[in-house]
Amino acid sequence: MAELIKIAVDAMGGDNAPAEIIKGCIDALSENDSIHISLVGISEVIEKELSSYQYDNERIEIVNATEVIEMAEPPVNAIRKKKDSSIVVGMNLVKNGECQAFVSAGSTGAVLVGGQVIVGRIKGVERPPLAPHVPTTKGFSLIVDCGANVDAKPSQLVQFAKMGSLYMKSIMGIENPTVGIVNVGAEEEKGNALVKETFPLLKKCPDINFTGSIEAREIPFGQCDVIVCDAFVGNVIIKMYEGVSSALVGVIKESLMSSAKTKIGGALIKTDLKKTLKNFSASEYGGAPLLGLKGLVVKAHGNSKSYEFKRALMQCVSFAQNNVNEQIKESLSLSDIQDGN
Amino acid sequence: MAELIKIAVDAMGGDNAPAEIIKGCIDALSENDSIHISLVGISEVIEKELSSYQYDNERIEIVNATEVIEMAEPPVNAIRKKKDSSIVVGMNLVKNGECQAFVSAGSTGAVLVGGQVIVGRIKGVERPPLAPHVPTTKGFSLIVDCGANVDAKPSQLVQFAKMGSLYMKSIMGIENPTVGIVNVGAEEEKGNALVKETFPLLKKCPDINFTGSIEAREIPFGQCDVIVCDAFVGNVIIKMYEGVSSALVGVIKESLMSSAKTKIGGALIKTDLKKTLKNFSASEYGGAPLLGLKGLVVKAHGNSKSYEFKRALMQCVSFAQNNVNEQIKESLSLSDIQDGN
Repeated sequence: MAELIKIAVDAMGGDNAPAEIIKGCIDALSENDSIHISLVGISEVIEKELSSYQYDNERIEIVNATEVIEMAEPPVNAIRKKKDSSIVVGMNLVKNGECQAFVSAGSTGAVLVGGQVIVGRIKGVERPPLAPHVPTTKGFSLIVDCGANVDAKPSQLVQFAKMGSLYMKSIMGIENPTVGIVNVGAEEEKGNALVKETFPLLKKCPDINFTGSIEAREIPFGQCDVIVCDAFVGNVIIKMYEGVSSALVGVIKESLMSSAKTKIGGALIKTDLKKTLKNFSASEYGGAPLLGLKGLVVKAHGNSKSYEFKRALMQCVSFAQNNVNEQIKESLSLSDIQDGN
Repeated sequence: MAELIKIAVDAMGGDNAPAEIIKGCIDALSENDSIHISLVGISEVIEKELSSYQYDNERIEIVNATEVIEMAEPPVNAIRKKKDSSIVVGMNLVKNGECQAFVSAGSTGAVLVGGQVIVGRIKGVERPPLAPHVPTTKGFSLIVDCGANVDAKPSQLVQFAKMGSLYMKSIMGIENPTVGIVNVGAEEEKGNALVKETFPLLKKCPDINFTGSIEAREIPFGQCDVIVCDAFVGNVIIKMYEGVSSALVGVIKESLMSSAKTKIGGALIKTDLKKTLKNFSASEYGGAPLLGLKGLVVKAHGNSKSYEFKRALMQCVSFAQNNVNEQIKESLSLSDIQDGN
């Protein structure tokens, strides 16, 4: 048997923890027999959940962690003080090499801080970006960054572009992925100070397929595989996806209930429409990797159900099997970017 | 008869000029008898269009302008060199007091530059913001700024909040409109440098109803009446509205064509669905005012048809009747903000 890919899972994080998280783990184990999972959290709670399932108990273990970091806690403090929380204990498993990946649907802030502070950056990486997938009419794209770098520097955006490209190539099998920088117009001379400074750096970067500016309007149509921006803009993009689709779905539903005729019509299209909207939903695309760390850290959506959580686990498998971290290390050591460590 | 409100119209600007622009003007004239329109552009072209309509020729005049500023032209150059373009000639009508407002569906850049350079700022206004309306599940909100201030300063955002509030109160009749600043989380300590600096200034600003941070996800649900941000972020918001809705509508249409059953369902809901989507479309909400100028300048959407253009003209009427400029002047002279002129 091939060597197992060992994944630490935050059993306590997210709106639907622990039930949906643990169900997602069980489903992943039965779908892919090269996964081993360390469920990190309050052991009695985990044991109780596990007791309702049948599973290969050689590929699952419980790692007790008595504390839980709540969503609203200030992340730096939480990581520093709650040494026995599921996030800190899980990340330490990655740091110590006992696991290759850590997945959490818990506090984004705590995951970002823990990733940097506990797991640590690859030498040369200035700031690790959080890179969620977003649905497009062609498939999906990667937005780098949606994490903590709200006042990013041009050199950081260049690294985001490189790491994003490697990820899309290795994990998603996209040959020569296109890279665009979010801008207010298509022309090179447009943009704020950050974009204007970054644009020429991306243009002369040899190891990415930079296609220039991308206006936000084009993002949902999949104009680029890798979308580069600072985390403030990335956050606005991700949340506009959520907001506009859910508002629009709301008004459509209302319109379907408006008369007897539309109710009948609605009944006829319901199943297909649901499927369509699910395909165009951000949560379908598993978790967001925190790129540029010494181990893999994946942030699953806070409201992940078992299905989405399972997908985040599957992403870890591809990430590990494709040695993305090794590739990032090589790519950044080849470049002339200053060592940020 | 009450005094006429004189509006200069760029007859040559926009994807559907001159036909739809002129039709919009004719419709506005017949809807509201207090409007007078000066159609600015190549007179032969305008005359030919007008010849197919019946209208009150005391309330419409043609002002010849032989040049046209194209969408792709660098705006500063275009405004400087094309002195006989419809945009420059139209704005001069406002500057000289011959018209109270100028409306164009042409180049946004040229309208922004012309507004500042030709019409000029109200004393005390640092930078005039472009403030489009966006649809929400409750009605609509105003995004300030989506114009040229991509690297805005905190003091400018405070002025945007004030001008936006006055606009929503005067034109839209919203008593005590709520004001939110776009942010990556709800907490006060979150944000990039600009937001962190602006937040306390907005908090202590006495003449607005500041409700704190707003996450982009909440914008389509109408959580605030006035949404304050720099123009880079504003542009991303507006274009994500357009992109996500049109991508989503595309996949929904495809799903409706997928089987005989869904086709029948689709036929039953088509009319109501169209109406719903139209109500949730950004173009429904007329034009975007450029706030803080000595006269009113309104940018209509580039692809405006006659209906949308007519709405932009109606906005001018409310703006003029409510003396919004006078109110902005008063509000800014009462405040302790430095004179930016």
